[in-house]
Amino acid sequence: MTTFDADLGDIVGNELHKHGVTVACGRTLERIEPRSDGSLRVVGSGGLDEPADVVLVAVGVRPDNDLARGAGVRVNDRGAIVVDRRMATGIDRVWAAGDCVHTHHVLLDTPTYLPLGTTAHKQGRIAGINAVGGDASFAGSCGTQAVKVFDLVAARTGLRDIEAAAAGYDPFSTTVDVDDHKAYYPGATKIVIRTTGDRRSGRLLGVQMIGAYGAEISKRIDIAAAALHAGASVEYLNDLDLSYTPPLSSPWDPVQVGAQAWDRSWRVHSRH
Amino acid sequence: MTTFDADLGDIVGNELHKHGVTVACGRTLERIEPRSDGSLRVVGSGGLDEPADVVLVAVGVRPDNDLARGAGVRVNDRGAIVVDRRMATGIDRVWAAGDCVHTHHVLLDTPTYLPLGTTAHKQGRIAGINAVGGDASFAGSCGTQAVKVFDLVAARTGLRDIEAAAAGYDPFSTTVDVDDHKAYYPGATKIVIRTTGDRRSGRLLGVQMIGAYGAEISKRIDIAAAALHAGASVEYLNDLDLSYTPPLSSPWDPVQVGAQAWDRSWRVHSRH
Repeated sequence: MTTFDADLGDIVGNELHKHGVTVACGRTLERIEPRSDGSLRVVGSGGLDEPADVVLVAVGVRPDNDLARGAGVRVNDRGAIVVDRRMATGIDRVWAAGDCVHTHHVLLDTPTYLPLGTTAHKQGRIAGINAVGGDASFAGSCGTQAVKVFDLVAARTGLRDIEAAAAGYDPFSTTVDVDDHKAYYPGATKIVIRTTGDRRSGRLLGVQMIGAYGAEISKRIDIAAAALHAGASVEYLNDLDLSYTPPLSSPWDPVQVGAQAWDRSWRVHSRH
Repeated sequence: MTTFDADLGDIVGNELHKHGVTVACGRTLERIEPRSDGSLRVVGSGGLDEPADVVLVAVGVRPDNDLARGAGVRVNDRGAIVVDRRMATGIDRVWAAGDCVHTHHVLLDTPTYLPLGTTAHKQGRIAGINAVGGDASFAGSCGTQAVKVFDLVAARTGLRDIEAAAAGYDPFSTTVDVDDHKAYYPGATKIVIRTTGDRRSGRLLGVQMIGAYGAEISKRIDIAAAALHAGASVEYLNDLDLSYTPPLSSPWDPVQVGAQAWDRSWRVHSRH
């Protein structure tokens, strides 16, 4: 879970262990061999030697840019096609969108590479509008992601400390452990929320959240994503008129409890 | 369900019927009598005559303003205390917040009366900050509400057609029936989403949503609430980088599918 802070990734690791999954990180896969019974043997560094019925190899995404380069379209050092916010390539009437292009990011000055389905759909819509004579501009990604792992959901949006610092922000984060809904109503579960903001400006930079499937983690992260698109401060989250009913939230939604913890810490810090 | 359009209220009514609840609307309650076995008899117009173990009477909220009026604080024609955005009453060092005050609304020029816990908490925080020498202003409510009814959740934010028209907007609405997540992943359920926008400006005015408990209805309405706070257009919802994973959403989140339906209808309409 390299797109989450390591300690939050551990929560996901624990969920995998709990369901009988062996997690072996930091190994180099050396070979996959057929075995006499038709199954597979996976061998790697550190003594990795596991039988398998199916091997899924997930090694990331690389833009297939042959067609683009052949047409004289510029690609960046990762091989991603360089486009402007209108998804124009610089060659007349040639537009590009999706996993093959670099991505404007609402919190970064320079484009990044985020090959995600959500981004591809949005970029494709913008390219399509412009291709038929319209005038639309891609608003940008903010790195929103969600994943369900057995009974957990992990979601994030924006930048983590390490990402924000690399981009020139002065970030810090606070973490809360808060009920998804009023504890007096049955079935409440804890959500871990890490809120990241900029020390200089108070600007919201990102949120990471892990909790039970059913705790509306992924759409709670979207509240923060909507605030990032508005260029909002952390404090702004507290202004939002979010829905509340005891089985589903609290008068201050968990995402606001996270914002208040950050804000308190920031104010104390700012006084010294 | 008077805070939802009547046809959406019917969906909630059907859920009640399905679980054996008798719904009797438009009756006037005439008396509640004790019965010889210790239970109660509820009698009303239209032949209403029902036995009951418990009677819950929900007749709305009226501000208890005796203390305020006694102190010379101004109240409006509904009896709600008149405050400014800093929750000041106009009398030095007297602040008011909660179900006893009128409420600034992000989409309305004049304050309204919305006695909700979420609003009370936000107003109380603002009043508290100002009471101890800070300077904070209440951002306003947008009428966000959610309710769980057996296996359904109904949620709303902003204004419905009838409310928006009364406020001087030129509203229309479109309705979609969309899967909460990718149908190829087990357990997808339909969400009914009604999106309301302003014909003149394209501004987002409100969203009503009904779907299964577990379909993240209440936090999906909060995405729209966040957009309302930003004064956004309906089209703006499509720009948001919302989270996606097949068990929890689609590359275009349902709230965006609703926005696209509205936008298509608006563009076709605007051409004629």
